Amino acid sequence: MGQARKIIVDTDPGQDDAVAILLALASPELDVLGVTAVAGNVPLALTEKNARKICELAGRPEIKVYAGAIRPMVRKLVTAEEVHGKTGLDGPDLPEPQMPLMEAHAVDFLVDTLMAHEAGEITLCTLGPLTNVALALVREPKIAPRIKEIVMMGGGFFEGGNVTPTAEFNIYVDPHAADVVFRSGIPIVMMPLDVTHKALTTEKRVAAIRNLGTRAGIATAEMLEFFERFDEVKYGVDGGPLHDPCVIAYLLEPNLFQGRTCNVSVETGSELTMGMTVIDWWGVTDRPKNALVMRDVNHDGFFALLTERLGRL
Amino acid sequence: MGQARKIIVDTDPGQDDAVAILLALASPELDVLGVTAVAGNVPLALTEKNARKICELAGRPEIKVYAGAIRPMVRKLVTAEEVHGKTGLDGPDLPEPQMPLMEAHAVDFLVDTLMAHEAGEITLCTLGPLTNVALALVREPKIAPRIKEIVMMGGGFFEGGNVTPTAEFNIYVDPHAADVVFRSGIPIVMMPLDVTHKALTTEKRVAAIRNLGTRAGIATAEMLEFFERFDEVKYGVDGGPLHDPCVIAYLLEPNLFQGRTCNVSVETGSELTMGMTVIDWWGVTDRPKNALVMRDVNHDGFFALLTERLGRL
Amino acid sequence: MGQARKIIVDTDPGQDDAVAILLALASPELDVLGVTAVAGNVPLALTEKNARKICELAGRPEIKVYAGAIRPMVRKLVTAEEVHGKTGLDGPDLPEPQMPLMEAHAVDFLVDTLMAHEAGEITLCTLGPLTNVALALVREPKIAPRIKEIVMMGGGFFEGGNVTPTAEFNIYVDPHAADVVFRSGIPIVMMPLDVTHKALTTEKRVAAIRNLGTRAGIATAEMLEFFERFDEVKYGVDGGPLHDPCVIAYLLEPNLFQGRTCNVSVETGSELTMGMTVIDWWGVTDRPKNALVMRDVNHDGFFALLTERLGRL
Amino acid sequence: MGQARKIIVDTDPGQDDAVAILLALASPELDVLGVTAVAGNVPLALTEKNARKICELAGRPEIKVYAGAIRPMVRKLVTAEEVHGKTGLDGPDLPEPQMPLMEAHAVDFLVDTLMAHEAGEITLCTLGPLTNVALALVREPKIAPRIKEIVMMGGGFFEGGNVTPTAEFNIYVDPHAADVVFRSGIPIVMMPLDVTHKALTTEKRVAAIRNLGTRAGIATAEMLEFFERFDEVKYGVDGGPLHDPCVIAYLLEPNLFQGRTCNVSVETGSELTMGMTVIDWWGVTDRPKNALVMRDVNHDGFFALLTERLGRL
Repeated sequence: MGQARKIIVDTDPGQDDAVAILLALASPELDVLGVTAVAGNVPLALTEKNARKICELAGRPEIKVYAGAIRPMVRKLVTAEEVHGKTGLDGPDLPEPQMPLMEAHAVDFLVDTLMAHEAGEITLCTLGPLTNVALALVREPKIAPRIKEIVMMGGGFFEGGNVTPTAEFNIYVDPHAADVVFRSGIPIVMMPLDVTHKALTTEKRVAAIRNLGTRAGIATAEMLEFFERFDEVKYGVDGGPLHDPCVIAYLLEPNLFQGRTCNVSVETGSELTMGMTVIDWWGVTDRPKNALVMRDVNHDGFFALLTERLGRL
Repeated sequence: MGQARKIIVDTDPGQDDAVAILLALASPELDVLGVTAVAGNVPLALTEKNARKICELAGRPEIKVYAGAIRPMVRKLVTAEEVHGKTGLDGPDLPEPQMPLMEAHAVDFLVDTLMAHEAGEITLCTLGPLTNVALALVREPKIAPRIKEIVMMGGGFFEGGNVTPTAEFNIYVDPHAADVVFRSGIPIVMMPLDVTHKALTTEKRVAAIRNLGTRAGIATAEMLEFFERFDEVKYGVDGGPLHDPCVIAYLLEPNLFQGRTCNVSVETGSELTMGMTVIDWWGVTDRPKNALVMRDVNHDGFFALLTERLGRL
Repeated sequence: MGQARKIIVDTDPGQDDAVAILLALASPELDVLGVTAVAGNVPLALTEKNARKICELAGRPEIKVYAGAIRPMVRKLVTAEEVHGKTGLDGPDLPEPQMPLMEAHAVDFLVDTLMAHEAGEITLCTLGPLTNVALALVREPKIAPRIKEIVMMGGGFFEGGNVTPTAEFNIYVDPHAADVVFRSGIPIVMMPLDVTHKALTTEKRVAAIRNLGTRAGIATAEMLEFFERFDEVKYGVDGGPLHDPCVIAYLLEPNLFQGRTCNVSVETGSELTMGMTVIDWWGVTDRPKNALVMRDVNHDGFFALLTERLGRL
Repeated sequence: MGQARKIIVDTDPGQDDAVAILLALASPELDVLGVTAVAGNVPLALTEKNARKICELAGRPEIKVYAGAIRPMVRKLVTAEEVHGKTGLDGPDLPEPQMPLMEAHAVDFLVDTLMAHEAGEITLCTLGPLTNVALALVREPKIAPRIKEIVMMGGGFFEGGNVTPTAEFNIYVDPHAADVVFRSGIPIVMMPLDVTHKALTTEKRVAAIRNLGTRAGIATAEMLEFFERFDEVKYGVDGGPLHDPCVIAYLLEPNLFQGRTCNVSVETGSELTMGMTVIDWWGVTDRPKNALVMRDVNHDGFFALLTERLGRL
């Protein structure tokens, strides 16, 4: 194996964020330069703490965790406790983190780190609202050509949204940030609901993770069982969509996913469709192609990968 | 069989409109009080002529055909010759119609007919932009409670749009008219792209229609073969979606279709998503339920019905 | 004097509409082909009746009055009883009209009359929401080049609006109709609040009208005294703005008014500024000039003209 | 005289910004804690340099000048070289600044300074797009209740806009930032075009400043003569509107200005009216009052104050 791929994980844990972080930390192919927290699923004070809890659960207290944006760029913060529980990590009983929060602001860490590395070295993995990334782009536009790519969980099109009929949560919380990112010229790989809703945490899959018997495995199973309840009730399916780990899985095994390069534009002008990611899947407009949009996943392969990696922790 | 169901067909033929009209005229369960033409797939001068051609093809020159709106309520007319060909009925070689166009304006016919019948007697079958219906509602709001229901081909959600990424043609052409109709309180059954894209004119199905050996059957096959080419190229499938006949099929065999009652709101405030039918399929808003939205079809049953009925002409 | 100028008055009386109608009927330079009523200041049932009351007050029961649109094209009707009183003509005690309402719909009258006359013969004087005119344009686009010009009371820019901070009532009630009209290519002379707010019904001016001693003069004074109260309280001025008669005065003495040809675009896409007439007074955009927008009035001359003409009734 | 009032000047010089800075630095009542530059009239690299040039012109090289946002929050940067010239300070020949630019980012300076002072101690004087202030509010919402007030040049209503028909430049450049600021709950005093267009740099007034005979006086006269040309040509008046110094003059002599407390809402949802400050001057909505909006100025008093103060430099 060559050199590990340098990534920064921008996140608002959330159980599925947590599993994504675990997957990243369990994977030697990835070099996690830092974890940046953002307000989203729950307020920032919880997401940064949850990020640290998960690093400790992975046995990696040396990981640098930064707190970032406490609110979206323009709109009021919307959170999703009805999905994630009050703490954002309801399910397992994880201890308060002992590792410190870094002093720097996540946006400064993003800017400084990107400017200190060669262009094309660092990949951003975004699992929450894009506030931190957009604020970094506004603060220092020179980072845009230095980012190798953004692999993002966010948006949805053929599945519709999960917070309004048309908007996925991460984009809805900060549509202006998403708009900035999608118009930035940075290469984007997008994992919308269209793909994540095909990666369900079925009973059997969760059992396989629990049966790892490790602390990480059992905690993950407990997180997934809490998390999946909301979608199971809403959609009447076995298992919830495991959104965020798709981002990390793509870095490890891109062939698990199939998609298409097309234009993605974010609605910021109408309340009815606010935060919708309009995906020109069929190429019917002349808007420039700005994202590789995934629509299909080898879900068995995805869960096999996830389970195997969690087993390493 | 009891009394035939009284319907008015509002249409912009269009090959799939034509097949819908044929299906209606071939079905004794339906009493076609009139056919009202609207600008849409092609300009009004063609749609009203095409409507007459089809009535004659069905051997029903006594059907009353009215010309209606020559343009949308607010926006400029957009047409779809790239799909339907220059005439709107490209494919078969149909003779110029001999039957007359009625003198009255379609909107007046709608108002007068609805006011002259008992409340709940008449069903509107809309196969094109909703301009005529909305103009009738603006002219005489009292018709709203007199309409039994509107069965509509229009919109799309999980399939996206077919003219922009988010908008289906009929709604896109006159989103303001659609907005008026969906807020009218009239019971609506909606056949969006989500269902019509599951009713494909496969080679075998078209052959079955051609093999009826009748003039109507052969002309229908020729229309479908012309019509399906656009979608076959675009989507890479065998057969094009047979949109409009779903409306008539629903009147004949409603159980062919499955759907859900939910809120449908039309985007009129943003160019990016203009004309989108935002369907609250999962009931995540508190907007009132205003339409029975179909999402699935027994496509074999649908084509069996269609073929059998065309055989009667 | 040559031949009288043929006009149709489209109106939603309203006291100031009433005075405009009186002014038109008192002026031999004008040939009132018809008065078309529209829902606006009060519902249609009242505006058409009020129009007839005023024709009778003018001693002109032979004038043809038509009822038109009962609601705006897309939005719900908003009325202004807080300004005009319950009847729309609160103030004088006018008898129920004896003259009949014409049977034809105002929109049909507009279309038929315009098509029956030579191009350039007929001027539309619009004193209310533009629903009737827009519906006529949608029904028969060929009328557009036949209209000599539209002289319109509506909109406002430097004065702001009078129903929302940015929207004037006539445009706000049916912004889509206004959008259709301003994009129609028809020559437009616009009397916005910017000019009508400079034509105040001061105590002295109303007294001069009352002192005509005629029935029409006294009724006008009573109407103005009722009407001005709303604006006097709101703006703390002596007298209310006499909006609609500016339209008729312009036909009689155009030099009373000063303005500029520029682009006017109607906001229909945002609730905050819904119905605003965006006037490019300084020519800072490349949008086409589509209206002669008045901004100043010789108000003494205007009231002198009005008083003199009312004296003829 | 008591303690000097602590202010931070946020600015995009710009000749009128420059005069405002000179006025502040010439006034012992004000304690300028720092000057923060933002992209606006010209790009950031010029505005921060221009700010330093002006501090040196005032003989105050010890003033702390910080560079802030290089671009708006969401939209692309628009500049106004057609008004201000290529450098933003065209007119006088000012030497390159010798004083250093502070290393910290203006947004960090704003946050740190506000958090280090007691609540209510610091007034923000904003003369450009509100990007820096909004980014500070997003970064640390706790600063909002610590700001004594924001005195802002920006917006316009009864005058219309100066960049589009409806939008004033500062707000148009970053409407989202303005939206954040107007919804922040911070007390705001707003100097819109409605007041600044009443403070014209007439020939006589500029001559009085030139006749001070000082370096600052002569340079100011040269700046004003360059700056006023654009508006003199556009509006055909003697003198250009001296926008930004109104902000500082208000701090020195608030009674020079008259206005009203009302709601100001920023349009961010429609391109036609993008960046408009919708001022509910007449209180016709129930939106909360969030700004003291000035509409009138004692312009002779204003120029007397300005000239007297410039004479002290």
